[in-house]
Amino acid sequence: PPRFDPAEHSHRRRNPLTGQWVLVSPHRAKRPWQGRQEAADDTVQPAHDPHCYLCAGNTRVSGDVNPPYTGTFVFTNDHAALMPEVPAAAPQTRLDPLFQAEAARGTSRVICFSPDHSRTLPELPLPAIRGVIDTWAAQSEELGARHPWVQVFENKGAIMGCSQPHPHGQIWACDHLPNEAATEDRHQREHLAAHGRSLLLAYAEREAATGERVVVQTAHWLAVVPWWATWPFETLLLPRFAVQRLPQLTPAQRDDLAEALRRLTSRYDNLFRCSFPYSMGWHGAPFDGTAGLHWQLHAHFYPPLLRSATVRKFMVGFEMLAEAQRDLTPEQAAAQLRAVSDVHYRCPPP
Amino acid sequence: PPRFDPAEHSHRRRNPLTGQWVLVSPHRAKRPWQGRQEAADDTVQPAHDPHCYLCAGNTRVSGDVNPPYTGTFVFTNDHAALMPEVPAAAPQTRLDPLFQAEAARGTSRVICFSPDHSRTLPELPLPAIRGVIDTWAAQSEELGARHPWVQVFENKGAIMGCSQPHPHGQIWACDHLPNEAATEDRHQREHLAAHGRSLLLAYAEREAATGERVVVQTAHWLAVVPWWATWPFETLLLPRFAVQRLPQLTPAQRDDLAEALRRLTSRYDNLFRCSFPYSMGWHGAPFDGTAGLHWQLHAHFYPPLLRSATVRKFMVGFEMLAEAQRDLTPEQAAAQLRAVSDVHYRCPPP
Ligand SMILES: O=P(O)(O)O[C@H]1O[C@H](CO)[C@@H](O)[C@H](O)[C@H]1O
Ligand SMILES: O=P(O)(O)O[C@H]1O[C@H](CO)[C@@H](O)[C@H](O)[C@H]1O
Repeated sequence: PPRFDPAEHSHRRRNPLTGQWVLVSPHRAKRPWQGRQEAADDTVQPAHDPHCYLCAGNTRVSGDVNPPYTGTFVFTNDHAALMPEVPAAAPQTRLDPLFQAEAARGTSRVICFSPDHSRTLPELPLPAIRGVIDTWAAQSEELGARHPWVQVFENKGAIMGCSQPHPHGQIWACDHLPNEAATEDRHQREHLAAHGRSLLLAYAEREAATGERVVVQTAHWLAVVPWWATWPFETLLLPRFAVQRLPQLTPAQRDDLAEALRRLTSRYDNLFRCSFPYSMGWHGAPFDGTAGLHWQLHAHFYPPLLRSATVRKFMVGFEMLAEAQRDLTPEQAAAQLRAVSDVHYRCPPP
Repeated sequence: PPRFDPAEHSHRRRNPLTGQWVLVSPHRAKRPWQGRQEAADDTVQPAHDPHCYLCAGNTRVSGDVNPPYTGTFVFTNDHAALMPEVPAAAPQTRLDPLFQAEAARGTSRVICFSPDHSRTLPELPLPAIRGVIDTWAAQSEELGARHPWVQVFENKGAIMGCSQPHPHGQIWACDHLPNEAATEDRHQREHLAAHGRSLLLAYAEREAATGERVVVQTAHWLAVVPWWATWPFETLLLPRFAVQRLPQLTPAQRDDLAEALRRLTSRYDNLFRCSFPYSMGWHGAPFDGTAGLHWQLHAHFYPPLLRSATVRKFMVGFEMLAEAQRDLTPEQAAAQLRAVSDVHYRCPPP
């Protein structure tokens, strides 16, 4: 009888951070694609766009004028999904098992990565990438003093709902632990209790040892296509040292993170020679006053492209109703990302 | 102090089927949209397309020739994500807490709704819709004899990854309980144990009583925008009687379901006067040899559009990393769907 071969046979892999499984169907990448083609994102933007709401000195929809900023620039979202003042929901609503609701309070900020309208993360000079990291950390610290969860993220590309070409990210802080945070909290806590080691620290060591799914490796950081990746070229960016939250990172760890981020996002852009779309974001221990030692800080990158700059993966029917399904193995995806250069095709460092 | 008003204030609602919360930000629909516009799907297709792989009498990619079918037509997917023969994974892989995998076995079929290339579900005569229901039920019964989970679904529209305009759905059967099935199984079991009543039967009664979120109501069926909807115009189609699985439906319940489906999908198309995209699918008790009495059969409709035929909701950054967020309340969405006719704008019944 044939031996089980993950590059050949359908199988499921379990994500230990969430307890969810993904269906891997490696043979499926062979099917012809006759569905929708996306517009490839490869337009070169000007360094300053007078009509952009995020460029320095320009006026936003709200009427506010952006300062002549030179590094990062953070402001409160003019159409925030979360607001600080919300009255409490009635007790009967909070307890009804079929119609349960809770008030949600928080804030939502925008972070412009630099005044340069044309430069995405990998196209910025290394000190500017370091500046973005410092802003992520400072915002997390400031908002974490008043909110248990601070979600730092970036939606990149029109295909990911980004409505502004000016490179920017977002920070949403809230007074509750969102679904994903609560799930990862529970699984990391249980793993530490059962195995005596931090889940993601142990995982990073084993990934570094085999190298099979490694995409970028620096002194302090490791980016892998995780064993349980659902998106075709999903990556997990992991510290190779114990750390719970962004503000704790030392200057040396931040410099090295800037390097890791530049290499990872350059490989992404080089893969299909386009500005590679994704949603990315950071997960760290909740700001709940504890050390949160069962947590390990990490970033997820969820990119939608599958075959080319114009053919994406659709997470639809079976994925929405049953479970995520992928068409190539994580090992194949990592090999493709390793096979391209880590120097950006359009914007090599000076 | 102002009173909590769900149509005004940010809040979270809990989905009792999954235990997941959704963030509702009703004021957010007011923000201007400058992001991506989709192509509206309003092209009229011919009744027969000689280049279509699914039309009667045509040859598929595999070389197989479709029969001259007159009702529904089911065949095994030429590029199935699940196959019947897969050797077992090695025991060390099955038990490794960080790198866990299991072989996955099953099959994947395509179901053409009718030979007419131009008619989506609401545009078919009622007996043809009834024929689709009978095929869903018969396939579930046949595949359920050998698989614990049979996922009946439809991806409709290019925006939902559908690569074929010919109206069709899919049926994927597998030898395991997928994530969503396992989660709904647990929550329904716990609800019955705690409250002595089937979760969704109790829920349907309360929804019918207030009518606030009802979109379609027939003698035996109810479609609502559920209290916990994540997609803007998501609906849940519920039987108003206890039933666990599709094959159990009586002829009268099937006839009435055809009527409910026609009205619901006509309202969808009428909302933005386009062929309304969605992924839909059925959930029922697993085929595990038990009566599955904690289960109640139901269908989910997950449509992506938000503001018009060309502006969708993006479930990206915050949604992927933290939790789903919606921009209008389920009550507002239900009112919009009730405000349009349940007679199809392009194809009224004879
Ligand atoms: O088999 P299809 O319709 O070509 O494929 C579509 O539905 C599948 C099941 O939801 C998804 O996995 C694919 O990403 C999607 O493109
Ligand atoms: O605030 P933005 O960037 O306009 O909005 C985008 O990101 C949000 C957070 O992930 C999503 O809720 C929106 O659907 C998306 O379009």
